[in-house]
Amino acid sequence: MNGVALVVARQQGVGRMNKPKVGVIGLGSMGGGVAKSLLRADFPVRVCDVRPEVVQAFVKSGAVACASPAEVGAACDVVIVLVVNAEQTETVLFGEQGAAPAMRRGSVLLMSVTVPPDYAERLGPRLAERGIMMIDGPVSGGEAKAASGEMTVMAAGAPEAFALAEPVLGAIAAKVYRLGGTPGTGSKVKMVNQLLAGVHIAAAAEAMALGIKAGADPQVLYDVITNSAGNSWMFQNRVPHILAGDYSPRSAVNIFVKDLGIVLDAGKKSTLPLPLSAAAHQMFLSAAASGHGREDDAAVIKTFPGVDLPGK
Amino acid sequence: MNGVALVVARQQGVGRMNKPKVGVIGLGSMGGGVAKSLLRADFPVRVCDVRPEVVQAFVKSGAVACASPAEVGAACDVVIVLVVNAEQTETVLFGEQGAAPAMRRGSVLLMSVTVPPDYAERLGPRLAERGIMMIDGPVSGGEAKAASGEMTVMAAGAPEAFALAEPVLGAIAAKVYRLGGTPGTGSKVKMVNQLLAGVHIAAAAEAMALGIKAGADPQVLYDVITNSAGNSWMFQNRVPHILAGDYSPRSAVNIFVKDLGIVLDAGKKSTLPLPLSAAAHQMFLSAAASGHGREDDAAVIKTFPGVDLPGK
Repeated sequence: MNGVALVVARQQGVGRMNKPKVGVIGLGSMGGGVAKSLLRADFPVRVCDVRPEVVQAFVKSGAVACASPAEVGAACDVVIVLVVNAEQTETVLFGEQGAAPAMRRGSVLLMSVTVPPDYAERLGPRLAERGIMMIDGPVSGGEAKAASGEMTVMAAGAPEAFALAEPVLGAIAAKVYRLGGTPGTGSKVKMVNQLLAGVHIAAAAEAMALGIKAGADPQVLYDVITNSAGNSWMFQNRVPHILAGDYSPRSAVNIFVKDLGIVLDAGKKSTLPLPLSAAAHQMFLSAAASGHGREDDAAVIKTFPGVDLPGK
Repeated sequence: MNGVALVVARQQGVGRMNKPKVGVIGLGSMGGGVAKSLLRADFPVRVCDVRPEVVQAFVKSGAVACASPAEVGAACDVVIVLVVNAEQTETVLFGEQGAAPAMRRGSVLLMSVTVPPDYAERLGPRLAERGIMMIDGPVSGGEAKAASGEMTVMAAGAPEAFALAEPVLGAIAAKVYRLGGTPGTGSKVKMVNQLLAGVHIAAAAEAMALGIKAGADPQVLYDVITNSAGNSWMFQNRVPHILAGDYSPRSAVNIFVKDLGIVLDAGKKSTLPLPLSAAAHQMFLSAAASGHGREDDAAVIKTFPGVDLPGK
């Protein structure tokens, strides 16, 4: 009851009246952070997730719970989809009680899931048929940046869509790359980013495994390499998890089983061999097969046998 | 004659008298930069290289030419070896007219070549037998940092060796990591760095190939990814070569054929599978087999068939 009362009080506040009503479908680590950022910026927020307890937590913070994606779609000017993959995106948009048939003409769908670029490409015209403007806008930055409203968005869509979504993007992202008017471009750039992200995490694991096996001090390796030409964003960010022996998931092994799968499918479709992506995908699959799929992606180092990992 | 005269004049200058006499064996992109930095800092510098015209260029800048590594060894307090690999290191130290038998007791050998760690490990005692102190000190940073005296040195050796070499290291490096007293540790850390460097260059090529094939703008890919979680030091540094279509060698494909070869040998010796290093090594081998071995390492992108590269 406190939560609902708070919502009413807030909705009567100054400023909120002119803000677009925003819906968030999918309240995982990224979608949850987006919802938090929107509430912090005083947007009227509708939320929907398959886990009622997660929805209730956001209601307590001032969001309005919706029983289905359709309810979100009917009530909002801008709907953000942050589910796990293309299959779930299809379900929340066009499945039973899906959002798309309920959304008003002239509203905006911000599709922020990492999906195959050709899926994003086809989704644009399907939504346009219903008068819905799509922004193909996958995001980068991880859970922390999502929660602080500082994600990077790789966004493609019509100028009218951006005009409506601009204040929303301003509340959830530190950087919005406008990559042209055609849905698909955002997902292409995101796919290339995920190729690198996945390979770099696996490479960080492989490098640390070799260094530890050779008898080098893991902390020294980290200190030297983060200041050398071997550094990567992922090495710097993920190796501390290995040093601490902490594999609680910030981003999970399974995410890269999926995302490198998208990369390899795209390579197959355009007949392009991708040897590193293939090797890294096998490493994440091996980690998942050994029961580490829901652990932090740095757990891919556990696929190297006979390495005496820190923090055990 | 001008060169020699200049050296004499400089040797009479203030400050130079107390500086250790330094020798540089190998005047390639890294050794040449080191020699330049030492001359700039007014050290007395002896140089030696198999290419007489390169030696002459340094004589004009104030260095003293030596006809053999032995001549360098006999004349210097600190000898820096920056040849290509372990085989060349062995030759310039212990081959005909090698430096080691000529070096004075109490002098320092700074071994800055990327070599198998076990070679560096064995070299320490072999030099110690002759009273020569070894610093196992491979370097990172590339040609530009070598020329400006701002390399990173991953150095292991006895405190007495560092005491003597300290002013020399100060003139050639921005960062010197002291990694303990035992030769081998520097080379281990460098090997791990090279694993990452090689995999990251190959990954940058693979990612750009996929993005270009998918129809994304290569410059946009670069701009977005250098600000995202997919970034690496190598992506940021090497992709501009791809964007410019400029494969003039700053560091060559053949360097990574060699360095990833060292990595894979170390993995084999310690029975550790290294799937990404193996895949990247094959990519560099493929580039070398296609005639790109002496081009910039970014030319590994030429191994992706049917990709319309920029700048052609």
